[in-house]
Amino acid sequence: MGHRLGDTSAPARLAAPDEGIGRDELALATRNHGLPLEALRYDVTPPGLHYVLTHYDIPYVPEDTPWRLAVAGRVRRPLELGLAELRAMPRATARVTLECAGNGRALLTPRPVSQPWLVEAVGTAEWTGVPLRLLLAEAGVAADAVDVVFTGADHGVERGVEQDYQRSLPVAVATGAEPEVLVAYEMNGGPLPPQHGYPLRLVVPGWYGMAHVKWLREVTVADAPFTGFQQAVAYRLRQESGEEGEPVTRIAPRALLIPPGFPDFMSRARVVRPGPVPLQGRAWSGRAPVTRAEVSTDAGRTWHEAELEPDGGRPWAWRRWRYDWTADPGEHVLSARATDAEGHTQPLDQHWNRGGFANNLVQRVPVLCLEPDPADSGGS
Amino acid sequence: MGHRLGDTSAPARLAAPDEGIGRDELALATRNHGLPLEALRYDVTPPGLHYVLTHYDIPYVPEDTPWRLAVAGRVRRPLELGLAELRAMPRATARVTLECAGNGRALLTPRPVSQPWLVEAVGTAEWTGVPLRLLLAEAGVAADAVDVVFTGADHGVERGVEQDYQRSLPVAVATGAEPEVLVAYEMNGGPLPPQHGYPLRLVVPGWYGMAHVKWLREVTVADAPFTGFQQAVAYRLRQESGEEGEPVTRIAPRALLIPPGFPDFMSRARVVRPGPVPLQGRAWSGRAPVTRAEVSTDAGRTWHEAELEPDGGRPWAWRRWRYDWTADPGEHVLSARATDAEGHTQPLDQHWNRGGFANNLVQRVPVLCLEPDPADSGGS
Repeated sequence: MGHRLGDTSAPARLAAPDEGIGRDELALATRNHGLPLEALRYDVTPPGLHYVLTHYDIPYVPEDTPWRLAVAGRVRRPLELGLAELRAMPRATARVTLECAGNGRALLTPRPVSQPWLVEAVGTAEWTGVPLRLLLAEAGVAADAVDVVFTGADHGVERGVEQDYQRSLPVAVATGAEPEVLVAYEMNGGPLPPQHGYPLRLVVPGWYGMAHVKWLREVTVADAPFTGFQQAVAYRLRQESGEEGEPVTRIAPRALLIPPGFPDFMSRARVVRPGPVPLQGRAWSGRAPVTRAEVSTDAGRTWHEAELEPDGGRPWAWRRWRYDWTADPGEHVLSARATDAEGHTQPLDQHWNRGGFANNLVQRVPVLCLEPDPADSGGS
Repeated sequence: MGHRLGDTSAPARLAAPDEGIGRDELALATRNHGLPLEALRYDVTPPGLHYVLTHYDIPYVPEDTPWRLAVAGRVRRPLELGLAELRAMPRATARVTLECAGNGRALLTPRPVSQPWLVEAVGTAEWTGVPLRLLLAEAGVAADAVDVVFTGADHGVERGVEQDYQRSLPVAVATGAEPEVLVAYEMNGGPLPPQHGYPLRLVVPGWYGMAHVKWLREVTVADAPFTGFQQAVAYRLRQESGEEGEPVTRIAPRALLIPPGFPDFMSRARVVRPGPVPLQGRAWSGRAPVTRAEVSTDAGRTWHEAELEPDGGRPWAWRRWRYDWTADPGEHVLSARATDAEGHTQPLDQHWNRGGFANNLVQRVPVLCLEPDPADSGGS
């Protein structure tokens, strides 16, 4: 009759057919937030509009808190660095599009019960920090190193396991320069906001959000594969719960539309008037550069090439695309899809897994085009 | 067979018993966002953690956009002012707690189908701008003025009605100094973020969020009561849909706890260890100063006086409170409630209305206190 964590922390589950979003999923949806899709207009997402997902509480770190980052484990010279020391090291800045691995989960059938994203768990920011490879070079990684483990200050319980949030990267990724992994202390030129990891977070360009450990306090080099909860239990691609599964890593290609016209408050359906409607949006992939964006205005039956903006030397950021549509009165479903240089593209049917991860089903945007306004007809 | 707004824009409705949150409600919950409750620790809410509700799209207003505010209608000298002109006028700064009128809606039975807030639609900011009464004095309000109407640049459709977002205040409130209504151009010392109304918004201390018109472009003095959608159709307290209803105005008192301990990811239930657990939170009311905060650790059966911090000369901002709890192993439900100087307090049973407005039901925070950790017992 003792009171144990299992009393409040249940196993993962799938929603029943026609089961609406529950109070638990809603509690996640009201505290986390997505990018309002009209904010796809901004090259760099303004503060407060970038998606946020925190597993546990946002740690409270007042500005004058002394913060030490430890670099430990299988290294020759363990380090413990304050923020001023990190700022004195060589720095790099990268514009990076970050997407939650669970983006699109709430559209899956059956729906994995977790943070119920539709398609909006994305954002782009300029991150500045110390290249991780320089920190690891200074510490001297042992020859038998396998994984590098990152520990955040966020603490909670998940499926009965009490934990600090921890994730790892293979040592080759952690010490690599392509992408350049950062221990970031600035977002868009200012200190990190609390919800984005103040004072330090990892940024792993091209990888889904779970890899970008926030409130980073320790980097631990390990001589064996890391088997912590967020690596071996969560964030795996599985069809059945008993499987080992493949790890979730890099971001699959996705394109999203800036919703045209104006919305209905409740249905969020879009309304346009007949005539030319320029369509714009963004496309990205963490696997390879995006080489193509296409648009469909008939629910995916036919596709048209969109004009893709050059990447401007920012390979880890989304790219803008454009397509000129002429709307006729009636109901339409708009879609866009991205393809990258390795040939990865987006499916029209769901690729399902139990966690609802790395799903990049093509977006559907219902649009109502009104009849012409008689007041605009200009004549008898 | 014409295509009309009614095709995409439905009347208001109540959820059926046991009807889960729908896709439409979820689309609102993922784009809008509440205050993660641990952020109640901050006196002034950091950017991106303050609640946000936008009815339609966030207007895209690049920094160099010329913006004019018109003051028109029943005035002797209509004005049209640019941002530099507004900044040259006398300014005032106020710390204001803002709450959405629909906060708590998703906890009601039956649930009004709209933005499904639990309890987190709140935030506190320092707003700086021109006192509205000075603008109206400069324009010269006519003697027959009744209402002052505020028009935002946000455009959409709601229950079949295409509209710019518009709300009014009685002329006595608009020209009053208690509270001092502001045409604000700064939030927390910087420009307004896009989602908070860049470049201009109204701030009406003590009133629910619907009154604080964002992306403000016109102030119109009217000689008749304003009957626009957001005034006469939405934001009314009604038991039946045909009723005229009372208008939603000032914020009812509410107290919220900073959730103690740490959370379970999915259930969001809190976990603590046995022993002293200091409880803290915030309390506010837009009707009169908060005079009392109480805490219950037994689901509202008994109540204990909390220590209320002085208001620091900021009557429109939330106040911090503290109560020392000693947790015993087992399941507990914590609550807090606020009472103001006019005797308004919070109910233990819901006060229901069809819009789910101005509901201030006492919060319930389930907490699991674990058995003592044998490793901590330090004994034989």
